[in-house]
Amino acid sequence: MRQSFDEHTDPSFGSRHLPLIRKAMAEQGLDGFLVPHEDEHQNEYLPEANDRLAWATGFTGSAGAAVILKDKAAVFVDGRYTLQVRDQVDQSLFELRDLVDVGVAAYLEGAAGKGQAIGFDPRLHSPDALERLRAAAARAGAELKPVQTNPLDQAWGADRPAQPQAPVVPHPLAYAGEDSASKRARVGQSLAEAGAESAVITAPSSIAWLFNIRGGDVIRSPLPLGQAVLNADGTARLFLDPAKTTAELPAWLGNQVTLEPPEALPAALAELKGRRVLVDPSQSSAWYSDALTQAGAGVVRGLDPCALPRACKNPVEIEGARNAHRRDGAALTRFLHWLATEAQTSLPDEMQIVSRLEAFREATGALKDLSFDTIAGAGPNGAIVHYRPTRRQIRRTEPGSLLLVDSGAQYLDGTTDVTRTVAIGEPTAEMRQRYTLVLKGHLALGRVRFPSGTTGPSLDALARAPLWAAGLDYDHGTGHGVGSYLGVHEGPQRIAKVMNNVALRPGMIVSNEPGYYKTGAYGIRIENLQYVTEPAEIEGGERPMLGFEVLTLAPYDRRLIDEFALTDEERGQVNAYHARVLDEIGAELEPALLTWLEEACAPL
Amino acid sequence: MRQSFDEHTDPSFGSRHLPLIRKAMAEQGLDGFLVPHEDEHQNEYLPEANDRLAWATGFTGSAGAAVILKDKAAVFVDGRYTLQVRDQVDQSLFELRDLVDVGVAAYLEGAAGKGQAIGFDPRLHSPDALERLRAAAARAGAELKPVQTNPLDQAWGADRPAQPQAPVVPHPLAYAGEDSASKRARVGQSLAEAGAESAVITAPSSIAWLFNIRGGDVIRSPLPLGQAVLNADGTARLFLDPAKTTAELPAWLGNQVTLEPPEALPAALAELKGRRVLVDPSQSSAWYSDALTQAGAGVVRGLDPCALPRACKNPVEIEGARNAHRRDGAALTRFLHWLATEAQTSLPDEMQIVSRLEAFREATGALKDLSFDTIAGAGPNGAIVHYRPTRRQIRRTEPGSLLLVDSGAQYLDGTTDVTRTVAIGEPTAEMRQRYTLVLKGHLALGRVRFPSGTTGPSLDALARAPLWAAGLDYDHGTGHGVGSYLGVHEGPQRIAKVMNNVALRPGMIVSNEPGYYKTGAYGIRIENLQYVTEPAEIEGGERPMLGFEVLTLAPYDRRLIDEFALTDEERGQVNAYHARVLDEIGAELEPALLTWLEEACAPL
Repeated sequence: MRQSFDEHTDPSFGSRHLPLIRKAMAEQGLDGFLVPHEDEHQNEYLPEANDRLAWATGFTGSAGAAVILKDKAAVFVDGRYTLQVRDQVDQSLFELRDLVDVGVAAYLEGAAGKGQAIGFDPRLHSPDALERLRAAAARAGAELKPVQTNPLDQAWGADRPAQPQAPVVPHPLAYAGEDSASKRARVGQSLAEAGAESAVITAPSSIAWLFNIRGGDVIRSPLPLGQAVLNADGTARLFLDPAKTTAELPAWLGNQVTLEPPEALPAALAELKGRRVLVDPSQSSAWYSDALTQAGAGVVRGLDPCALPRACKNPVEIEGARNAHRRDGAALTRFLHWLATEAQTSLPDEMQIVSRLEAFREATGALKDLSFDTIAGAGPNGAIVHYRPTRRQIRRTEPGSLLLVDSGAQYLDGTTDVTRTVAIGEPTAEMRQRYTLVLKGHLALGRVRFPSGTTGPSLDALARAPLWAAGLDYDHGTGHGVGSYLGVHEGPQRIAKVMNNVALRPGMIVSNEPGYYKTGAYGIRIENLQYVTEPAEIEGGERPMLGFEVLTLAPYDRRLIDEFALTDEERGQVNAYHARVLDEIGAELEPALLTWLEEACAPL
Repeated sequence: MRQSFDEHTDPSFGSRHLPLIRKAMAEQGLDGFLVPHEDEHQNEYLPEANDRLAWATGFTGSAGAAVILKDKAAVFVDGRYTLQVRDQVDQSLFELRDLVDVGVAAYLEGAAGKGQAIGFDPRLHSPDALERLRAAAARAGAELKPVQTNPLDQAWGADRPAQPQAPVVPHPLAYAGEDSASKRARVGQSLAEAGAESAVITAPSSIAWLFNIRGGDVIRSPLPLGQAVLNADGTARLFLDPAKTTAELPAWLGNQVTLEPPEALPAALAELKGRRVLVDPSQSSAWYSDALTQAGAGVVRGLDPCALPRACKNPVEIEGARNAHRRDGAALTRFLHWLATEAQTSLPDEMQIVSRLEAFREATGALKDLSFDTIAGAGPNGAIVHYRPTRRQIRRTEPGSLLLVDSGAQYLDGTTDVTRTVAIGEPTAEMRQRYTLVLKGHLALGRVRFPSGTTGPSLDALARAPLWAAGLDYDHGTGHGVGSYLGVHEGPQRIAKVMNNVALRPGMIVSNEPGYYKTGAYGIRIENLQYVTEPAEIEGGERPMLGFEVLTLAPYDRRLIDEFALTDEERGQVNAYHARVLDEIGAELEPALLTWLEEACAPL
């Protein structure tokens, strides 16, 4: 079993660890210290050894921060985690604050004292974030002070888990579709457009993509933690812990790439003196810009040059995604069959549900990892958007309830992410009405055609309009990018209310996941992955239009669809999708299951 | 007749005026000079005395620029004006360039020589635009040099029309709905949020709104050209040419506002020494920031503090808009009746069409001005998005064609802007199919409900999706803000593909105007004005939702609607709108017209 239902922190973390951190702060003459969630790699998921926020406070969410002063401290989380933080953090030690509305900067401005020195680890903060914090501290008459040694790391000491050292292996061309030399050549050429001669690459997913390598340093994604310097001519220096490099790696990387230990990085940055060097301030901490500036290099701020090429999957990656989704869809279909039959009377709990789904995926023989911990939200737990079942919170399914299951898998040929909501017993009329509204938005975002240059936020309202018309909405984005055997959340494109000026381009994989959540009652989300198709002519039209092709293959729960609330176009779209599911998944199933799938996919 | 079909420039302007400008440049030691379309007031429409670009080049579009060097020159226009510029500008003198893709900066970088001095008038350029131009000149080794006296103005000399001096009159409370003291108090209070103690207001529409005054310095909008300094306590200094101030003005402005001549402005800015002063860099030229900085004031860049309060109409303004649209709708209905009957056989030309519509509006007795020159595009002329009929280009209507009429009026109680497309003779199946697609988008944007915080660009795709699905699109925005007896194009909100982070707020008036244009054949546009309604509960829903209420009242041409292509919801929406038109406009019409309107508004 890959997924655990245990929690690795508890609310005593604060009372046990805060004094140690404050002692280390005092030794460095610091009146305060900033603890962001981000680690040295600015990645969404952290190895346990780098989850400093969790160790200091007990809070394990995927975003947040803490400020530790001599006599008080605060934890900052966003709306997704307001319930969780209360369970995990000792509120006699930490004030709980809103990460977004009030924010760290505002707290600092109010709480820091005149003349105080507030420490920060420059390896952990993006330059943009630091600028805001520095200004806030200045308004309070305090000063931000970079530390050489992180006092939290000092306090953590021997208890701290070792840095991950998962082996880094080649990612074969049969899955990558383009060799590293070609990638380095075209990304190298693109540097000139940004006005740069070299680039510092620190995003683990960019390292993995650019060199066609995969690692395992971060749970749920095959990422190698490392750094690279890429030059305009396609040559590169790759910095990886030698303990992680496998024997075959040097030959795989070729003679245009030097493989070096992390200790060589500072000197390598210093050698960039006099060159214009691209750094992504959202991916690379202030330490990189500072080191380059000190070395006399010209820092050019810009988007990670691997981000767009990585996001636009090539035909081999798309074919891999199709295969991965067919495999994953068959496993999911077996799971949905179990839910629709045996589970209707055995009424399993969330742990049993998660285990059963994992077993079906494991049985494919191709599962490398989950792409994230499965969310199985029974009844009211389904309404907690970022729910993860733990022993303390799990619920059993009940008749007349909904079960929301959001899950995904990492396969060598692709990463999946799918949500289905199913009825346990007889759903209420309200459940069906709301499921159908969510489905209408999901279908609208699935069938839309759009011209080149269209961004994700331009399409977001298509998925929400049916809910809006009924006085409903959901408080999360509609779609995120997904990697190819890489991170399940991947930029730079995004479909959300929040502004994002990245146009959707052919080959980008995005999720399509509107939802509806009734607090204390149930949650609904329907999620497919879909990729952006090449601009194509439309009969009778004048301009070629991009569109989406759905990758995910698994039936919607027809018991939750109010077919009379669908337009002819929507009904036709559901029927065509179900026919495709039956066609592609049916071939992999034994007769009993096939009969069930035929019923599940019969035309509305 | 208010509208003229004459052109006030011709292609000989270049050969007659360029030598004069170059002579004045040489006297100032300049190797080049930048000529933006914008004038001192950064307003969309210019008084003829300030249309320097037209005088220098012959080009009369509403956006553009020119660069005049010693031995060559270029004119820059956007996609709307690529045809028009070829007719108006002597291409042996001016290279024609794309304003957007290549742009002035790129031209400057390529064309300016090392060590050259390129002059610019700091009163005419926004600080943002200047920064880009300065950087481009620097890359070419040239230098931008501010001029004290504009060499183009010197060259223009005695031929230049006088600055407009239309009287500035009070805008009564019965139309404004809030007195100036109240507006000044709340805008003054808002300055603190932006971190400022005073603001320099230069946008003519903000001057008009803040002081409840109207002028006539700019054609088609009742704007007074002037400047103001507003302080946090609501006191203000208003700078207006004494020749424009009417006797009643000082009393109307009250004792918290001093009325001063424009010559007093530089000293007034100098007196702001030591204060933090808000300046909108998109509305106020670099001259203001420079003057304030030199005076020792702290320049705070931010949105014009009047922009949002002006955009959100109060109940009196909304009631005025309703009255204006009922009056205007009756005039338009008389015009549409004429088009649907007599004009079907008399086949008038565009001038006759424009004149007839103006006569119907004039007959209301309340017309203060057109809100812009009426666009009457017959057949292929309808496909030219920014078409204005001139003697040289006008066409006669023909059987089997479409006529696009985009027009509006200025009334004391409101500004209108409406487009209807009507069939002359029998429309083709393609015309009906495309009209219906445009209508579907227009209806979707009319009926959408949305939560607080939603921006215009988030809703843009709703109006385009039906066209996109057919491989069609239109190359203009979907909606612009509209003033209350002010500019017909008013920010800060906008519904368009282009990013804009201003949320739609209750009381904002926006246009809803999707279109389709078949070059060389016909154009379709359907435009209503609609205002944003207060958040309201929806039965069975959980969150209050904003929405739109349509202001414009005039029937759509049912001969162009393919009712079988409409959903039940769309058909119901058209029928409900037509019932409202009949109800509100019918009461103002004589029996024969009422009978026609009843047919035009009968349920589909």
